Amino acid sequence: MFVIMFYDIRENRVVKALKISRKYLTWIQNSVFEGEISLGNLSKLKAELKRAINSEEDSIIIYTLSNTKYTKRELIGIEKNTTSNIL
Amino acid sequence: MFVIMFYDIRENRVVKALKISRKYLTWIQNSVFEGEISLGNLSKLKAELKRAINSEEDSIIIYTLSNTKYTKRELIGIEKNTTSNIL
Repeated sequence: MFVIMFYDIRENRVVKALKISRKYLTWIQNSVFEGEISLGNLSKLKAELKRAINSEEDSIIIYTLSNTKYTKRELIGIEKNTTSNIL
Repeated sequence: MFVIMFYDIRENRVVKALKISRKYLTWIQNSVFEGEISLGNLSKLKAELKRAINSEEDSIIIYTLSNTKYTKRELIGIEKNTTSNIL
């Protein structure tokens, strides 16, 4: 399945979250990641991130698209990450 | 249709982009917006943002979901914008 993930994490925890996220998804820009991921890896990603954040201060939103047939991705301006597996 | 939008815009232009984006979508966190929007308003939003940015330095990505049946939104931690029209 295809996932779009973005987070708003305090500075003292964000580097760890970035490292974890990059293991499973492609960094797109700022605090946004996307990519194809298996159910198993998505569970691992979520578990690792939950341990890395303070859930009373930080925020992670994950959109899971089980079918991308109804999804369009549009870019205005430059692609910040040129290696992303664009939809 | 439902839209997820995120941008990576230079500091000297980001306030204007934020004001434009908030006219049409709900601010979620950092530089991320989401919400239901008509085709007409989406065209206006894109036209206004294109005028506000430098497309050789800035980046805006818009995901358009014409059908949210295959989409799941999951929150870990806190919702930064408590007024958002959550999917």
